[in-house]
Amino acid sequence: MSRYNISLFTSFICFFSSSIALFSQQKIEQWNRFEFILENTSGKNTFSDNALSATFTHKDTSITIAGFYDGDNRYIIRFMPENTGTWQYKTSSSLAALNNKKGEFQCVKAGVKNHGIVRVSQTYHFKYADSTVYFPLGTTAYAWTHMANDVQEQTLKSLQNSGFNKIRMCVFPKNYELVKEEPSVYPYFIKEVKKDTKGNEVKVWDYTQFNPVFFRHLEKRIDDLQALGIEADLILFHPYDKGRWGFDEMPMEANLNYIKYLVARLASFRNVWWSLANEYDYVKSKTDKDWDTLIKAVTKADPYHHLCSIHGSTAKYFNYQMPEITHTSIQDESPVINWGGAAIVRSIYPKPIIFDEVGYEGNLKSRWGRYSGEEMNHLIWMGLIGGTYVTHGESFMFKDLRDTIFWAKGGKFKGNSWKRAGFIRKIVSETGPLEMADVSRDFKTATNGKGAYLIYFGKEINETWSFNLPHKNASFERPKAGMKYKVEVIDTWDMSVSPVDLVFFTNEPNDYRILDKDNQKVRLPLKPYIALKITEIP
Amino acid sequence: MSRYNISLFTSFICFFSSSIALFSQQKIEQWNRFEFILENTSGKNTFSDNALSATFTHKDTSITIAGFYDGDNRYIIRFMPENTGTWQYKTSSSLAALNNKKGEFQCVKAGVKNHGIVRVSQTYHFKYADSTVYFPLGTTAYAWTHMANDVQEQTLKSLQNSGFNKIRMCVFPKNYELVKEEPSVYPYFIKEVKKDTKGNEVKVWDYTQFNPVFFRHLEKRIDDLQALGIEADLILFHPYDKGRWGFDEMPMEANLNYIKYLVARLASFRNVWWSLANEYDYVKSKTDKDWDTLIKAVTKADPYHHLCSIHGSTAKYFNYQMPEITHTSIQDESPVINWGGAAIVRSIYPKPIIFDEVGYEGNLKSRWGRYSGEEMNHLIWMGLIGGTYVTHGESFMFKDLRDTIFWAKGGKFKGNSWKRAGFIRKIVSETGPLEMADVSRDFKTATNGKGAYLIYFGKEINETWSFNLPHKNASFERPKAGMKYKVEVIDTWDMSVSPVDLVFFTNEPNDYRILDKDNQKVRLPLKPYIALKITEIP
Repeated sequence: MSRYNISLFTSFICFFSSSIALFSQQKIEQWNRFEFILENTSGKNTFSDNALSATFTHKDTSITIAGFYDGDNRYIIRFMPENTGTWQYKTSSSLAALNNKKGEFQCVKAGVKNHGIVRVSQTYHFKYADSTVYFPLGTTAYAWTHMANDVQEQTLKSLQNSGFNKIRMCVFPKNYELVKEEPSVYPYFIKEVKKDTKGNEVKVWDYTQFNPVFFRHLEKRIDDLQALGIEADLILFHPYDKGRWGFDEMPMEANLNYIKYLVARLASFRNVWWSLANEYDYVKSKTDKDWDTLIKAVTKADPYHHLCSIHGSTAKYFNYQMPEITHTSIQDESPVINWGGAAIVRSIYPKPIIFDEVGYEGNLKSRWGRYSGEEMNHLIWMGLIGGTYVTHGESFMFKDLRDTIFWAKGGKFKGNSWKRAGFIRKIVSETGPLEMADVSRDFKTATNGKGAYLIYFGKEINETWSFNLPHKNASFERPKAGMKYKVEVIDTWDMSVSPVDLVFFTNEPNDYRILDKDNQKVRLPLKPYIALKITEIP
Repeated sequence: MSRYNISLFTSFICFFSSSIALFSQQKIEQWNRFEFILENTSGKNTFSDNALSATFTHKDTSITIAGFYDGDNRYIIRFMPENTGTWQYKTSSSLAALNNKKGEFQCVKAGVKNHGIVRVSQTYHFKYADSTVYFPLGTTAYAWTHMANDVQEQTLKSLQNSGFNKIRMCVFPKNYELVKEEPSVYPYFIKEVKKDTKGNEVKVWDYTQFNPVFFRHLEKRIDDLQALGIEADLILFHPYDKGRWGFDEMPMEANLNYIKYLVARLASFRNVWWSLANEYDYVKSKTDKDWDTLIKAVTKADPYHHLCSIHGSTAKYFNYQMPEITHTSIQDESPVINWGGAAIVRSIYPKPIIFDEVGYEGNLKSRWGRYSGEEMNHLIWMGLIGGTYVTHGESFMFKDLRDTIFWAKGGKFKGNSWKRAGFIRKIVSETGPLEMADVSRDFKTATNGKGAYLIYFGKEINETWSFNLPHKNASFERPKAGMKYKVEVIDTWDMSVSPVDLVFFTNEPNDYRILDKDNQKVRLPLKPYIALKITEIP
């Protein structure tokens, strides 16, 4: 972790007040974290967001970064450089010990495993800052960082062996049916402990006193995920509190201070995404207008423009047209249960579409948590074929409430769909970004616009497929007579790719379709969840 | 037409300058048109929008209305009063002959056939200003007012015998495959006629000189529609010009003047809706930002806030979240071809959803114009069951290009789906506004929230249906054990409603469903396009 290395260096910056630090040759990779610590022993320490800032300068670029108080007289400035070359910085503070500290470092080219921050690409897709395609295939473990340490370590091990590259996770602990674990550390210090009318203990938090231990732990876990190549889709608020801690109903001023503090600590973590809420509409203390305010607070505080969205309950769509929102984060199974649904949502929003919750593979009584592995995998493919992205989740409980259920707690995967994540990503990494070839008419054929198609048959069980493609090819050049194609049969459940030993030659377009001139057919395995990959032979 | 009566009276208003007119007892129904004419013989007449305005006052309400020049030295002020009681007015103009004219009239309660202007109701639906439910079931005849007069009269006769209560129609003439008729009158006067490089005549319009004859004709047709109880969904711009007249590529200043002139003339027609464009994205001269400007120009000019939307090509969704847009006007068949699609769109936009183009019943070669009557009717029902509205259209051509094809020219209906419009409206007028009872899980059951359900089986051919309802009932009170229901079987194609001779008694909810305690079944007619109406017996 470069963070700790830097800290060793920078912890004595404070002794070189107003001068260029000696270690100006320090090297930081693009999109890694540069950090330094300043000490203030004057006793006037505060978590207030305007205690410290630093301006980083690189040629014509100048970025001002909020610092934050980390407890124990320590203030920290963190910065994620995007451009290579020399960066110089200078602090500003009303506290003399923090003011006018200067230094510089060298930002060097990213290493092979560092692709940078994930950005929106081609309106509907994503890529890393170094232009590597990022196909999001995430899973969900809302409260994993609040579990016992061995469970957290197991979660990381599970993720390491999976194909997932994103995880939805909450900052605050979770109090919900099947998830009752008390966290070992809280985000705030306790002002007092009261008894409610029923005699239960109620903690009263001091919302002006953040607990740095809580945030350092969260940061460690985000760094752990980064080491695994996993994006942390970090949920800032959620409704699963129900009067236990009250983090869902803090005053607006506390919400805004929390956002500033969190963003100051985390914006330099390149694998962080901001998810303002899970099921925002179930958070009864906040209106749509409040969410608007909170979203704007996050994006205003974040100098790097991390991906940012908000998630509602089933079929509850926020106004995702809001410019601060980079992509949709939808809970709705309907668009992936029925043909064509995902593509409709994609036609509506000029943004990447992620269905972040469409139900879970599991064995719960609730219908949201009892899909078969096949169904979960199928729904991911239904999204994929519509040019969108679907997030995985599983909710198996074999023992009792102490059982880990991945959806909330992490731990071990117990289902079968998670094993397909890597396979899906491999298929899509070969085709690149997809969209419907003939939107609103052919609901099964996706094109990459460059001669490759994926056709997904879903639950249809077919014996053969006669070569045929839509003549329309999204907004790309249309196929025409005299082209050559090869076909591979993909079993999305068994994870096999079987090349077909035929070459197909196209005829003239016939009533919106392109057929093989000899009407050649492909034998299919008479199983559900079959897809085809069709590739032009140059 | 009250308009002409008023004109007779008001044409000598101009002789009573600065005094209350003698006929102050004139009575105008709410939402009817009050109109008066002023003459200006000074020779300084202009179509400029700021030549004349009038302020109408009623108790604490004061509305300023733009007048317009109607040619022949005549200026007109039109006003649609919404509140009963005495309205007083006073004109303002830089032309002395038009300035400071005063008068008053009595606005009386609307007659039985006058329900007022249509407004959005309960977020997703519509009602007339007098609170009568308006269930939009429209058809399409883009250029009907530009056809020969006998065809126009036939169109009105066809509409009178149909169940439609809305029609999509263009202000400008149409030049498109199968529609080449030259209109007899143009919206502008001709400045000159040029020859292009191929020797074809090209008319050069004077965009500052509107042709009142053109607009008077359009107004007559809108009044004809009003007499039939039909809303005119008036399309202000469209791409079907292709260099023939150039109305799709006027300069922005001319577009804005056109909007001001059109709105000044038509805003007092209670049955007008503003549709900024058909297939807006095919109008190559205008950007999304231009449309934004034009939409705002319309709503700014319209003191009554008529319904306002814009229509794109297939699966092209404008930013319908824009507050000036009152409802969606979508071209996309996908949401009504597949289960659940319409409800997705409704979940996304907090506005009434109209699918104003999902294809046409017809016999054309193009796939957009070759649905069977059954398919057209089915798609309307697919929208209805999702709590949305679908517009009808037909495109039969039996002879040659001179044949009238209702889609563009009007004339006679030749298909079969139009005959079902009245039946559909009758069914829905009985249930009232609908929405999915269990959105994203049950794609066939709509609820009115008050004990009535419609279930639509679409193309399924079933022998029986076991009584069962979703336990979820949108946001309304859920059904529970011990309730009584009756069932009617609706054949949506044959237009029959057959009561089932059974009473159903509900059991406790069972895995998200409510069943009959004796598992009673309903015999179905083993035909497609069957629906059920299920009504609680108090």
